[in-house]
Amino acid sequence: MDIISKHVCFGGTQGFYRHDSIEIGLPMRFSVYQPPQAKQGSVPVLFFLAGLTCTEETFMIKAGAQRYAAEHGIMLVTPDTSPRNTGIVGATDDWDFGEGAGFYVDATQAPWSTHFRMYSYIVHELRKTILEAFPADAKSVGIFGHSMGGHGALMLALRNPDLYRSVSAFAPIVAPSHCPWGQKAFSRYLGEDQQSWQQYDATLLVDSVNAVAPFPDGILIDQGLSDKFLMEQLLPERFEAACLKVKQPLTLRRHAGYDHGYYFISTMMEEHIKFHGRILNSTVNRS
Amino acid sequence: MDIISKHVCFGGTQGFYRHDSIEIGLPMRFSVYQPPQAKQGSVPVLFFLAGLTCTEETFMIKAGAQRYAAEHGIMLVTPDTSPRNTGIVGATDDWDFGEGAGFYVDATQAPWSTHFRMYSYIVHELRKTILEAFPADAKSVGIFGHSMGGHGALMLALRNPDLYRSVSAFAPIVAPSHCPWGQKAFSRYLGEDQQSWQQYDATLLVDSVNAVAPFPDGILIDQGLSDKFLMEQLLPERFEAACLKVKQPLTLRRHAGYDHGYYFISTMMEEHIKFHGRILNSTVNRS
Repeated sequence: MDIISKHVCFGGTQGFYRHDSIEIGLPMRFSVYQPPQAKQGSVPVLFFLAGLTCTEETFMIKAGAQRYAAEHGIMLVTPDTSPRNTGIVGATDDWDFGEGAGFYVDATQAPWSTHFRMYSYIVHELRKTILEAFPADAKSVGIFGHSMGGHGALMLALRNPDLYRSVSAFAPIVAPSHCPWGQKAFSRYLGEDQQSWQQYDATLLVDSVNAVAPFPDGILIDQGLSDKFLMEQLLPERFEAACLKVKQPLTLRRHAGYDHGYYFISTMMEEHIKFHGRILNSTVNRS
Repeated sequence: MDIISKHVCFGGTQGFYRHDSIEIGLPMRFSVYQPPQAKQGSVPVLFFLAGLTCTEETFMIKAGAQRYAAEHGIMLVTPDTSPRNTGIVGATDDWDFGEGAGFYVDATQAPWSTHFRMYSYIVHELRKTILEAFPADAKSVGIFGHSMGGHGALMLALRNPDLYRSVSAFAPIVAPSHCPWGQKAFSRYLGEDQQSWQQYDATLLVDSVNAVAPFPDGILIDQGLSDKFLMEQLLPERFEAACLKVKQPLTLRRHAGYDHGYYFISTMMEEHIKFHGRILNSTVNRS
């Protein structure tokens, strides 16, 4: 693991790192904010998954999250949004597919299946790297994200409620099987058989919950009502209906005037960090 | 004045604008954050001058200032750091001179003197534009900045204490006549006669104060001690000595570990906005 840069920030440390990923088969970058409390021992860790075109840097620059992470003693981790420099023909042609648009799935279709394994990379490999290299508490891990990364956060958490104790999202793609962004990405990464899409669709994953709601402390989603992607791509009402059906507690807040960008995200950031802090700090176990 | 974009942010409005500048002789861009209080009437306004290579967007994206501006009811305004698309040969060759590095002076030397009139642009033209087009209180205007923009803020305020009620800076260039960045810029914009540099050198301007300290409420400067430019370019001790000599109150805070970037700036932002808010809100006069 190489350190690209480190910066003191709100009494903690903002770092940028690069490592050779086995899952991806290429070098990957990620960023970690260690709050001041991490100097004294292990702290809860909160993964942020970013949206289309973003990198491991976007959230750390634009979201203003470090202040709240320092207040609540939470480590922040952001991976890149896809493999980079893959050499695959067409991988950089589209802003909503390929590099910068990994959609947090393990691709099964050539030529994507070789490197585009973001699901396994984040759930297993990056998690292990963080827990080994930083003072992060394996029992207090949460996840959140924005847009494509909101899809990623909800989907990863719903499939792995044993690994993630808290989950929230900003303007997430909640039903990728039913929107143009998701259909384009899933058909190319996973093939035309929509059966294989279900495991990556947050709304369908909630629908398939049989007994106990996986997140009894609730799921928090913030959505701007002036978000130009709301009606066609984001479809929060589908997730809301699915949660209601299986009694998964959901706080879906709709905000007049706010759009899809980081001026919206930064406004809502404090409450998301508080939400995760309440759950993660209550389950910290340093044994 | 054209609106480039507008975004709701912390209950207020983040806007990006373009206008044809008479002083510059070219279109100029600037950004304005209007706090929620601006919907009810005029509010204090705080100009931020950015550093080398930055644009009117950098501060609004990276500094996390909107939250505090909303809390204290202060409007934020950031101009670009120089004229753009000047067509001058060599104007984009250097990162520390020319476009992106206007140094907030009125150039007197060809070919720069035609467009590089950032001093007059900010003190007169942009001020007038803001006061006319936004609910900004002409009697409660402050200024702050970073690095080259810290130089700009201190220098503009010291020359115009009637126009600026409060001034602060992050890692400012306080003695441009005595550092490589300043010497390179001033010799090309202003010529080799160092007499003409004095009016743009904050430390020399403080030195020339005759009677009453121009900012009785004090000047606030934050400086990181791991800032790689500290020893050669920034020289805060020179400004400190000048302020001491003329009894200009100065709070110069040195912070172990912090570097020159926005992770440092964002950490210190709350106290700067509070500092300006205390002074500007006490002098608000809506008559």
